[in-house]
Amino acid sequence: MADLVSETRCFGGSQRTYEHRSDSCGCAMRLAAYVPDLLESATAPVLVYLSGLTCTEENATTKAGFQRVAAELGLIVVAPDTSPRGDHVPDAEDEYDFGKGAGFYLDATEEPWCENYRMKSYVTGELLRLIEGELPADMARVGITGHSMGGHGALTLHLKNPELFKTVSAFAPIVAPTEVPWGQKALSRYLGEDPSRWAAYDASRLVREAPSAAEILVDQGTADNFLEEQLRPHLFEEACRESGQKLTLRMQEGYDHSYYFVSTFIEDHLRWHAERLTG
Amino acid sequence: MADLVSETRCFGGSQRTYEHRSDSCGCAMRLAAYVPDLLESATAPVLVYLSGLTCTEENATTKAGFQRVAAELGLIVVAPDTSPRGDHVPDAEDEYDFGKGAGFYLDATEEPWCENYRMKSYVTGELLRLIEGELPADMARVGITGHSMGGHGALTLHLKNPELFKTVSAFAPIVAPTEVPWGQKALSRYLGEDPSRWAAYDASRLVREAPSAAEILVDQGTADNFLEEQLRPHLFEEACRESGQKLTLRMQEGYDHSYYFVSTFIEDHLRWHAERLTG
Repeated sequence: MADLVSETRCFGGSQRTYEHRSDSCGCAMRLAAYVPDLLESATAPVLVYLSGLTCTEENATTKAGFQRVAAELGLIVVAPDTSPRGDHVPDAEDEYDFGKGAGFYLDATEEPWCENYRMKSYVTGELLRLIEGELPADMARVGITGHSMGGHGALTLHLKNPELFKTVSAFAPIVAPTEVPWGQKALSRYLGEDPSRWAAYDASRLVREAPSAAEILVDQGTADNFLEEQLRPHLFEEACRESGQKLTLRMQEGYDHSYYFVSTFIEDHLRWHAERLTG
Repeated sequence: MADLVSETRCFGGSQRTYEHRSDSCGCAMRLAAYVPDLLESATAPVLVYLSGLTCTEENATTKAGFQRVAAELGLIVVAPDTSPRGDHVPDAEDEYDFGKGAGFYLDATEEPWCENYRMKSYVTGELLRLIEGELPADMARVGITGHSMGGHGALTLHLKNPELFKTVSAFAPIVAPTEVPWGQKALSRYLGEDPSRWAAYDASRLVREAPSAAEILVDQGTADNFLEEQLRPHLFEEACRESGQKLTLRMQEGYDHSYYFVSTFIEDHLRWHAERLTG
């Protein structure tokens, strides 16, 4: 099903890169998977990590430093790419926040994007089937997290699919894409100009319609350059309060948007997921 | 003395990049410094981390994941660049193992390298003065470590300057550059064809002449692609045994040459240095 591109020992487990043909995205896709050492025939819970703008499957695995705690907890961590790839895939060159590296975890409906930009279908379907087929994963215990655009992906994919992703957290997520420039740009071009078609990809709107039974953990740095214009976590906080959604929003004093921020708090997130997936 | 290029909060401390004019190297040089939160007017021991071929000051700070333990131990970690930089600095384009990114922590004597490729003088002089001037550092408690070419740098600079760098360790170091292709290429071009001029930069030779009072810690992965041709740690082990040098060489089963290897064991190294610098 998937080719093993590389495998590297790390904290007593195995950090792998796989490549496979994606029908959802119409291209070859890569993903990274950290697999802790397990007893023969044992299975482990899974945390899917969705990365932000400009990232590939590699950013989290090289910079987030999650492997130590994943090994301790016996947690598989899978990081897919952030968009379709390949020369035949349409792109918006010179735009870091649209096209390749900026799939926004949605299924595009507009030409020329709708052929390949189908990351929602990819993550909720093919990716999970691949995890089940290739890894010693307990598919009844899968959580999701992400950073920035990937935090948006984690929140929306959990809220729409709580049966697939039982637990959820996010680092500096885009929580209200219909109301901020990154989101408005991406949604209008992937989905068309009619804002009524965007609501299914807006975590703050989704949580008002149908809050999740799961608690949500969000960490957000106060020195994040994107805080006021693009992220606006208090819009999500307000939506959660109004809908009765349990949320732990931690404003982290002095932290920015980088992986120095993610790496500082990822241990808390892994423990949060592991506790709820194995409890 | 130095410009603060960036400062990012990480694990309760501050990950900084500085740029300054280097007289040793005749160019602007960058360095990364992690400074844990300290009590007012307190000073901290310092660990200098030397990176390997192709690296800059950024590789260790983004990929090694040392900040968590450095914060816990109250240890400053400083990572300089690996060579002089700038358009006026001679380079060997298309050669990853010579020229920029491959300074080998020596002072070149041959044209055109001798004007700028003076990383030995830089690390043992200017860099330490800059640390003393800019950071809350206790200069009586400075250790040194490094990876691959940087492990070579750490071992040789400690052995020649045990009064500057009191403790030493290395990850997958080049231990016998006069006997391996990477070293022979670099030494012959930076220092000239006469091998008698290379000995001062060969850890295995230095340790035979003058072992250190400090114990040396070396980690080496058994699945490292460069193990047999370039690294050959047993040459150093033999030299240490013959000269009475205390060495802990740990062959780490299945680990390769990457930062997945470094990140797995860097906690042990930080604790090793901190224990000896603060004991």
